[in-house]
Amino acid sequence: MADDTTSDETTPRVSVLGAGNWGTTIAHLIGSNGFPVTLWARNRELAAEIDERHQNSRYLPGLSLSDNIRATADLAAAVRDVPLLFLVVPSQAFRSVCEQLGELVRPSQLAVHATKGIELVTYKRMTQIVLEETCLRQIGVLSGPNIAREMVEGKPAGTVLASRFPRVIEVARAHLKSPQLRVYSNTDVVGVELGGTLKNIIAIAAGMATQMDLGENAKSLLITRGLSEIARLGVALGADPMTFSGLAGIGDLMVTCASPISRNHRVGAALARGLSLAEAIESLGMVAEGVKACKIAYELTTQLKIRSPLMHGVYRVVHEGLDPRAGLGELMAAAVQDDIDPTLVRAAAKGA
Amino acid sequence: MADDTTSDETTPRVSVLGAGNWGTTIAHLIGSNGFPVTLWARNRELAAEIDERHQNSRYLPGLSLSDNIRATADLAAAVRDVPLLFLVVPSQAFRSVCEQLGELVRPSQLAVHATKGIELVTYKRMTQIVLEETCLRQIGVLSGPNIAREMVEGKPAGTVLASRFPRVIEVARAHLKSPQLRVYSNTDVVGVELGGTLKNIIAIAAGMATQMDLGENAKSLLITRGLSEIARLGVALGADPMTFSGLAGIGDLMVTCASPISRNHRVGAALARGLSLAEAIESLGMVAEGVKACKIAYELTTQLKIRSPLMHGVYRVVHEGLDPRAGLGELMAAAVQDDIDPTLVRAAAKGA
Repeated sequence: MADDTTSDETTPRVSVLGAGNWGTTIAHLIGSNGFPVTLWARNRELAAEIDERHQNSRYLPGLSLSDNIRATADLAAAVRDVPLLFLVVPSQAFRSVCEQLGELVRPSQLAVHATKGIELVTYKRMTQIVLEETCLRQIGVLSGPNIAREMVEGKPAGTVLASRFPRVIEVARAHLKSPQLRVYSNTDVVGVELGGTLKNIIAIAAGMATQMDLGENAKSLLITRGLSEIARLGVALGADPMTFSGLAGIGDLMVTCASPISRNHRVGAALARGLSLAEAIESLGMVAEGVKACKIAYELTTQLKIRSPLMHGVYRVVHEGLDPRAGLGELMAAAVQDDIDPTLVRAAAKGA
Repeated sequence: MADDTTSDETTPRVSVLGAGNWGTTIAHLIGSNGFPVTLWARNRELAAEIDERHQNSRYLPGLSLSDNIRATADLAAAVRDVPLLFLVVPSQAFRSVCEQLGELVRPSQLAVHATKGIELVTYKRMTQIVLEETCLRQIGVLSGPNIAREMVEGKPAGTVLASRFPRVIEVARAHLKSPQLRVYSNTDVVGVELGGTLKNIIAIAAGMATQMDLGENAKSLLITRGLSEIARLGVALGADPMTFSGLAGIGDLMVTCASPISRNHRVGAALARGLSLAEAIESLGMVAEGVKACKIAYELTTQLKIRSPLMHGVYRVVHEGLDPRAGLGELMAAAVQDDIDPTLVRAAAKGA
């Protein structure tokens, strides 16, 4: 790695911005690989707790974090002269953090975001927001089937690093990879970003199906057809259809749908128990990403005239109070019955 | 449907050959749709039980079968003048039943098999065996995420019917489809046959991972990379890579890997507990399909020089006594790290 500003081996050459459970986990993985790393937390108490006690009791209670992590609430200090930045702030706070970064970063810095979601109203992906708000250009995205807690516990996993810049992949991978973590590369930034976002819609459907005791066949049908809908929308937005067969597509979708503790799964289950959206959100204590994502997907697929019976069904259940049975029923009643969508076959052909 | 031999509305126009749990389920689904159907069982007592008591206590204990099923142990009677045949006999008995059918069938009859597996030694798929042993030419295959018991219980599911003959799909779908069962079509017979066979190898790996408590991230990694290996071998054998993203690929793979009661899953778990293959098979009471499939896949991928670290790892654990930890470790240590295999992208391009 080239770096012309630091000389001290203990000065972090990588910073993670955002100390939620995923940002903290990324910092922990880098620290566990022997690299000093700075973790920025907006909250001063949280920064102090991580810095002094190597604990994040709010997001990863009971787990010991790497000694190589230094935490700070000073964004400028976390960013200045650091060759590699990971951006891991919530999607709806992403632009405001990027606005602040606009004053702090230089084009020579590399940046990888690990935020799943699309900005409401603008429908912008996180890399688009980085490009709009900062001079950072050598950017990438990290996504995949990565339950944070399992990774901090040292269990094995694979993840995807997507960028059009080989150097971003090379430098970020060097910090992340270990015998415990396989880092796969992809050049399809759009597909990797969309896979991580749209899967949450299907996880809501899986939560409904589980609550209704529809069985494993039905759940597999939902997930597989859901994958096909995600790929169809993804292709219309510029993604490579093959990406959705990889870890950031079906891999992440599977983990999210398998986990009954995921927020999206729990929203789906609550709606199927007859709760309203407001009641489901209240019982959860927060809004699940899929609640926002299904609104965005509904609007985009309607504008672009993309057939999406499952995502539309979830939207109607979540935002229009449709009975979950009727919402999932749209999938069973849909007219088209090709196993493989011809649109995707044509898109795959163009991609090569 | 054209048919010039039967006139009585109660004379079955469809027969299912093979009264294991899947054959019996297919007959039950057809019967439940209001069609009279003949079910052939090799075993006379089983045929009598199904015919008289509408029960299959050996393979689907406790479930009531449709009154529209007539069962017989007379193969000639089951086949004669019936426009549509379903072949659902075990893979290693498939050729001998086809040899008998060779004397009984006519080229005007339509045939769909629903047998997962490849013939040992010859590496032949079931449709190839039908073509070699009979004059049947209008043939297809049924496969997908279909746990038989759930389907007899009336839970919803999707399945794939693949054939190069639209008439086979049309007639078979007319008998199978219902508000409970979505029947998706595909023309890629090879891909659908291989998906249903090779998934069993990955299910063994999933069983090992579950037993070793590797977590959901690792299981998703295994399944996603396993899918990619299946697709790579499938493409080399003439399949369309997109088929593996559909219900007969990832859909079936997910269901098989999710089910801790599946035979393949249990073999993997037993091996990870330290049992030998002989002990695992003895504790199971039968040989799981994946035990045979991983030998075939190992030999084929070695011959064809196809990189398959996961399937080779499973083969070495199952047939060479390698420690399961080392077997799965080959996946984590593999050198290549592209999320999406360039071979598959090129194959997808050719397919369109």
